[in-house]
Amino acid sequence: MSAPTPIPLLALHHTGLLVKDVAQAAAHYIEVLGYRIESEPIDDPGQTARVQFLRLPGATHWLELVAPLGPESKLANALTKGGGLHHLCYEVADIVAATAHFRAAGCMVVSEPVAAAAFPGRRIAWLMDRQRLLFELLEAGPGPLGLSTLRP
Amino acid sequence: MSAPTPIPLLALHHTGLLVKDVAQAAAHYIEVLGYRIESEPIDDPGQTARVQFLRLPGATHWLELVAPLGPESKLANALTKGGGLHHLCYEVADIVAATAHFRAAGCMVVSEPVAAAAFPGRRIAWLMDRQRLLFELLEAGPGPLGLSTLRP
Repeated sequence: MSAPTPIPLLALHHTGLLVKDVAQAAAHYIEVLGYRIESEPIDDPGQTARVQFLRLPGATHWLELVAPLGPESKLANALTKGGGLHHLCYEVADIVAATAHFRAAGCMVVSEPVAAAAFPGRRIAWLMDRQRLLFELLEAGPGPLGLSTLRP
Repeated sequence: MSAPTPIPLLALHHTGLLVKDVAQAAAHYIEVLGYRIESEPIDDPGQTARVQFLRLPGATHWLELVAPLGPESKLANALTKGGGLHHLCYEVADIVAATAHFRAAGCMVVSEPVAAAAFPGRRIAWLMDRQRLLFELLEAGPGPLGLSTLRP
């Protein structure tokens, strides 16, 4: 029997919610549910997405609103199927090792680690597990959207 | 201009993930992602669901695995459409007032407050907002799945 593989997840960073319009959705979650704004809207042409981060007071992770950026966005098709909850994002210390860990565990690597506009200096990767959960890996790092700003 | 309506949400209680088989999914999230078991599987005939709660170490909310209970479950149809992320659940102090708050704000009340097997003595309600997010309200209360056990 081999030694158990170390689990590379540090913590949940955000829950991603697919919406048609980030500004309209942000207004709704702020006014009706009490979320607070944690970032300006951020355009990421590489991900063909516009995102904005909100957070419930006291929460140790964010809500990411995600909308298609332009009519050619790969998110536009998913939106026609209904929108709603889209993905979970976990911070990891070593994104290359973490991606390899999940591939070896039978998860599908949707996209390899790549720079992302929402997190300057940090890479993201996309995976899907056998429960059909889409999840994102994000390199841990400093900055306004670093988990270390929320957790002691 | 009227006074702003108080927001009745206390905190995120769990993220619900629709799966085919709770035991199989639990093994995956424990072995591959590092979640810990926080409850036994719980059958809720009223919700035609079997649920089990997991949690990442350090997290202040749970992951709820949800599977159809029996072939007639209303969840079986949603599962054929792909499974995956299903709902967010928020704790509220007054579930009747909170349901009225969200109805007045334009959310659709999918089901009125009712007792739920997973949370003895506490009621749940189901709503959908205009972003097509399905969300659950749960009366705050004591017990092993009370948020007060996770937050000081």
